[in-house]
Amino acid sequence: MTAITANPNPIPTPTAPAPDIVRCASMELVVTDLAASRAFYVDVLGLHVTEEDDEAIYLRSFEEFIHHNLILRKGPVAAVAAFSYRVRTPEDVDKAEAWFQELGCRTERRRDGFVKGLGDSVRVQDPLGFPYEFFYEVEHVERLHMRYDLYSAGELVRLDHFNQVTPDVPRGRGYLEDLGFRVTEDIKDDQGVTYAAWMHRKGTVHDTALTGGAGPRMHHVAFSTHEKHNIIQICDKLGALRMSDHIERGPGRHGVSNAFYLYITDPDGHRIEIYTQDYWTGDPDNPTITWDVHDNQRRDWWGNPVVPSWYTEASFVLDLDGNVVETVERTDSSEMEVTIGADGFSYTRADDEDGTYRGQASKGFKIGNQL
Amino acid sequence: MTAITANPNPIPTPTAPAPDIVRCASMELVVTDLAASRAFYVDVLGLHVTEEDDEAIYLRSFEEFIHHNLILRKGPVAAVAAFSYRVRTPEDVDKAEAWFQELGCRTERRRDGFVKGLGDSVRVQDPLGFPYEFFYEVEHVERLHMRYDLYSAGELVRLDHFNQVTPDVPRGRGYLEDLGFRVTEDIKDDQGVTYAAWMHRKGTVHDTALTGGAGPRMHHVAFSTHEKHNIIQICDKLGALRMSDHIERGPGRHGVSNAFYLYITDPDGHRIEIYTQDYWTGDPDNPTITWDVHDNQRRDWWGNPVVPSWYTEASFVLDLDGNVVETVERTDSSEMEVTIGADGFSYTRADDEDGTYRGQASKGFKIGNQL
Amino acid sequence: MTAITANPNPIPTPTAPAPDIVRCASMELVVTDLAASRAFYVDVLGLHVTEEDDEAIYLRSFEEFIHHNLILRKGPVAAVAAFSYRVRTPEDVDKAEAWFQELGCRTERRRDGFVKGLGDSVRVQDPLGFPYEFFYEVEHVERLHMRYDLYSAGELVRLDHFNQVTPDVPRGRGYLEDLGFRVTEDIKDDQGVTYAAWMHRKGTVHDTALTGGAGPRMHHVAFSTHEKHNIIQICDKLGALRMSDHIERGPGRHGVSNAFYLYITDPDGHRIEIYTQDYWTGDPDNPTITWDVHDNQRRDWWGNPVVPSWYTEASFVLDLDGNVVETVERTDSSEMEVTIGADGFSYTRADDEDGTYRGQASKGFKIGNQL
Amino acid sequence: MTAITANPNPIPTPTAPAPDIVRCASMELVVTDLAASRAFYVDVLGLHVTEEDDEAIYLRSFEEFIHHNLILRKGPVAAVAAFSYRVRTPEDVDKAEAWFQELGCRTERRRDGFVKGLGDSVRVQDPLGFPYEFFYEVEHVERLHMRYDLYSAGELVRLDHFNQVTPDVPRGRGYLEDLGFRVTEDIKDDQGVTYAAWMHRKGTVHDTALTGGAGPRMHHVAFSTHEKHNIIQICDKLGALRMSDHIERGPGRHGVSNAFYLYITDPDGHRIEIYTQDYWTGDPDNPTITWDVHDNQRRDWWGNPVVPSWYTEASFVLDLDGNVVETVERTDSSEMEVTIGADGFSYTRADDEDGTYRGQASKGFKIGNQL
Repeated sequence: MTAITANPNPIPTPTAPAPDIVRCASMELVVTDLAASRAFYVDVLGLHVTEEDDEAIYLRSFEEFIHHNLILRKGPVAAVAAFSYRVRTPEDVDKAEAWFQELGCRTERRRDGFVKGLGDSVRVQDPLGFPYEFFYEVEHVERLHMRYDLYSAGELVRLDHFNQVTPDVPRGRGYLEDLGFRVTEDIKDDQGVTYAAWMHRKGTVHDTALTGGAGPRMHHVAFSTHEKHNIIQICDKLGALRMSDHIERGPGRHGVSNAFYLYITDPDGHRIEIYTQDYWTGDPDNPTITWDVHDNQRRDWWGNPVVPSWYTEASFVLDLDGNVVETVERTDSSEMEVTIGADGFSYTRADDEDGTYRGQASKGFKIGNQL
Repeated sequence: MTAITANPNPIPTPTAPAPDIVRCASMELVVTDLAASRAFYVDVLGLHVTEEDDEAIYLRSFEEFIHHNLILRKGPVAAVAAFSYRVRTPEDVDKAEAWFQELGCRTERRRDGFVKGLGDSVRVQDPLGFPYEFFYEVEHVERLHMRYDLYSAGELVRLDHFNQVTPDVPRGRGYLEDLGFRVTEDIKDDQGVTYAAWMHRKGTVHDTALTGGAGPRMHHVAFSTHEKHNIIQICDKLGALRMSDHIERGPGRHGVSNAFYLYITDPDGHRIEIYTQDYWTGDPDNPTITWDVHDNQRRDWWGNPVVPSWYTEASFVLDLDGNVVETVERTDSSEMEVTIGADGFSYTRADDEDGTYRGQASKGFKIGNQL
Repeated sequence: MTAITANPNPIPTPTAPAPDIVRCASMELVVTDLAASRAFYVDVLGLHVTEEDDEAIYLRSFEEFIHHNLILRKGPVAAVAAFSYRVRTPEDVDKAEAWFQELGCRTERRRDGFVKGLGDSVRVQDPLGFPYEFFYEVEHVERLHMRYDLYSAGELVRLDHFNQVTPDVPRGRGYLEDLGFRVTEDIKDDQGVTYAAWMHRKGTVHDTALTGGAGPRMHHVAFSTHEKHNIIQICDKLGALRMSDHIERGPGRHGVSNAFYLYITDPDGHRIEIYTQDYWTGDPDNPTITWDVHDNQRRDWWGNPVVPSWYTEASFVLDLDGNVVETVERTDSSEMEVTIGADGFSYTRADDEDGTYRGQASKGFKIGNQL
Repeated sequence: MTAITANPNPIPTPTAPAPDIVRCASMELVVTDLAASRAFYVDVLGLHVTEEDDEAIYLRSFEEFIHHNLILRKGPVAAVAAFSYRVRTPEDVDKAEAWFQELGCRTERRRDGFVKGLGDSVRVQDPLGFPYEFFYEVEHVERLHMRYDLYSAGELVRLDHFNQVTPDVPRGRGYLEDLGFRVTEDIKDDQGVTYAAWMHRKGTVHDTALTGGAGPRMHHVAFSTHEKHNIIQICDKLGALRMSDHIERGPGRHGVSNAFYLYITDPDGHRIEIYTQDYWTGDPDNPTITWDVHDNQRRDWWGNPVVPSWYTEASFVLDLDGNVVETVERTDSSEMEVTIGADGFSYTRADDEDGTYRGQASKGFKIGNQL
């Protein structure tokens, strides 16, 4: 393991102009058993293979027109090799390189790309320790968006967002805002602690989010479906295959983001979210929504409990040499601890008469139904 | 409280012909705050009022053409006053009366009906202690099935079934089979214990089901929707009203019945299931499906945990004088105890190598994710 | 071609008891190109093959547990060889045989069945000229109803109904009511002409319907889906395959039956309806709904026009020797003529002020939008 | 009526920088009977009233957070008073004013806005004769996006796009590309004629589209729903209200845009599209899709016919004095004439053997089914 380069806190704002990021565009996942992962992503989830060999499989969702939005690469340790963003122009790759170099981050530029289907790209180990990639040049492939002859009942149509675990959310948020992201929603408490933040480039609730915890780790990568029944079908299919233990949490309706969601885990434990129907955030003055960490509907609008593994488990990330990046613990309060179990409390209605809220055990908190 | 009349075990088969039951048709619920219940069933769930006064509200679902399929009646104790079944002919009411009299059950016949909208009816306290009602004569009202101007996003379209808690499931099952019900699915273990059974008249998975536990109690009454998104909307609406603590379990896909489901509780704690898309069972040789009680997908096809309250809570029932019927404890194994917590075990795949199944803790059981 | 045996009008009611019919259960279609039909029903529509050889393919829908509900049999002329109904007991096959023999119909009994998967069966050429089949004994096969790993986006789940073209609807209706069917809806005019009637055994709007026109012909056979989006997907897939000319009419919402529908044609021109969400009709006093033939929402609730081919085209039927049955023209008014074109009129609101209704051209009739 | 100011052809590209347009944001409709329009948009379609008086009603869809996205204003002639776009900064209003002034267009600036809820705005009569408006300052109102207690079964969630009729599509397209719009799809023939073009700012298929025909006229304004069933419900409700003659075309799946659609008409004949599920177009190199005007799946992916009124009818637009702008006829070929009726032809499969395509009447064109 390699440690994250010590970074100043807060991370300074570079003087160089930030690249114009269009959207989160692809993730490169390292998996330990390529055949098992192929079975999961292709046979179960129905992603479409653009090309593959013994080392890697390039996949894309139904509406994608660039070469891939998910790469499965065989490796010794399950981890994330790259969070890839598309930028608006070829020059934005230069800007990204300069911007991160000014921050003292290690960068690596490859004019022919790091992976098939992408051209000139820069990879950086960002100030939070994550392997970020920026590219403009792509190989166009057939966009399948009207190939309804290939449309499965649980079809994944777009890569929607990443979610990253980092110990200090405000620090990461400031850096990403400098990079051009805009915060749409966050979770805080009345002590001023921030537990998570969602931020976007493409006009949806997020292109990436920061979740407070030991990091850098990848919490999940999300694909969207057209409608809610598509997500239900994925659950039904996992049940039919006797793989229901791959369903970690959901389906449900998020409070944050308003999306209908499901979390599942792949054969290596990488978490995938299936997601649909958030809302437009592209206006310059889009209102930021702040949720109280004790609001029991913030993570699930229906008040269904968040399973502890969802808080504790996440995937390692790799540095530019392919080594696992050592994680740093969170020192702020843990969302899990302040909301679940003996020390935690939550409320359904903040002002409920017989709920004590600040003194624990508010009416309507459903965890009491659990043994 | 009154005790159930001591009944022989097993309950003998009457020599009189059983009435020809068409379907479960209505439930009469006693509620303690009529205004609060009206707000729940009419304003939140959108059932349609046929008529109402200070004592009772008569409600019907979107596709019902008889006067009502749910009555809310004001009373001192929340309970169920009647499980009402429609029979095929006026003479079948006579048959029902004679059939239960032969069993030594108390019966009461009212030529003008016990409630508005129904004519000649007989009520009985059945051998399991439940207040059953049988009627043929009804007042027809406007069937709203094409009144899409009144169709809400979470519209309830039909009364689908009852679910009753009784200590000895095989005993109750034998009696109901004599009464003409046919079993479609059940839950057993390899020791021969039956935990629950589903049985029908109308060609769906059930008109009523028996759940093992202290009884007689009413576990739930179920209304169906057209599609799955209608059920999701009910959850979303409860969230918007900050009533998410009324969502007890789900939504999910049942193993048993194959239906998409949700359990919610009304202001008195009466449990309502919202249910859609089981399957046709009306063939004479419809195969009965038996589920292993340790199969973690039997109650939820996606393996999501059953909350303990779902096993332990249920509504009292009334005798023909309106007194609460005393309950009798179950002596057979409890489904909750054999599947949840320290003494319980479940499996996702019965033959999993590293699951020990008979020696506990099979791979894939998700309860381990709970704190 | 063979002519229909001359039958008395009206058809007399047999003194023998009618068989107890459970439901419409299967259709045997003769197709001229077995490979082309297989491509359509299996590759495009996704029906499941139970077994097949060079002469015939036995198909079933997702929730069927008997051997098949559609047979494709290779033959020289596209036609229907059997409308098959399941009866409640083995003795009901005897009853069916006797009942039709009393009517003077030709019958043929085969103790080992006419087709694979079915046992003791009787086939008759009924008084309207149709090849009806009745059976009880079946081979059970895997019911796929929870095999969501096989569930396609446009999955067909049940055989819902047949639709038959016959010249004299009231005559056919009387005969089928004697056979135990109950009418749920019909289309009439104020001159007393009946244009069509829907009748059921299984508690839905129909197991079969009679449409007025030259007959005996098969108008369509209908399969149901779970939800409306499944039907839309079938359209989308036909578009993607550049087979949109197989979409004849719809999708739309029926007035009659209240179902969401689509009509498509197979490679031989046999018409298939895809159908979902009618309503429960199994009560003994289920109200019959009569629609005015001039009500422009009767066939499509949204007032979208019925294409002429839908009125004029239908499939031939075979007699028990496999010869095409000669058709007899309708002598009553034609629904197409009284509602479409120069001589037809329709209304959206019967009492519209500026619609002249009885004197033609009522406001709101959309055909005026067509060139 | 006033004539459009004579404009050069092609319209020159201004040297001033174009404003940065975020999205189409609102339309101001003049209606002749405010109560009738309110009944249609509020009671039938369920748009939410932000505020209203005797002269105007300000409406917004479920997910909108600015004051309104549709204004109904009482007036003597049904017409469109403004196509309003939101720009990214206050300075972009200045840029819009200067940009159109350089083109010689009449402009009017109001620091307090032309309508309630909007601040500093500029209105212009654009080179095509349309009343365009640009604004940044808005009053924020409650975003209802999680108010599922207000969510109707056919809920409209966003304003999606405008559609404008103009005689010379390439001329208009060039001007709008200069203004910053990007073309996603168009319809052409092999003679080089352009029949329509779709162009966007916000990353969907369009913020506005140009349809060839006598103009300037407004073809339609489109609102989106979450799912397809929401659109079906709107049809079902119009049927229940006996307003099915307000359904002009659809529902269907577009070829162009890939969206599921419905066209309805309001009491004044203004056309509203209900629209859902197009695809992401925000990448800088998003591929433009060109459809052949003879492809019978271009306007409806299922090959269902376009009704002539859809081609011929559209709403007038007003100049800045509130006078109707005189329309200019199209001189290029008409899409309706080249595809419908005696002179038109279309194909389902361009290379069909027995279709003659270039010599007319290709196999698979469904208009032959029409009388």
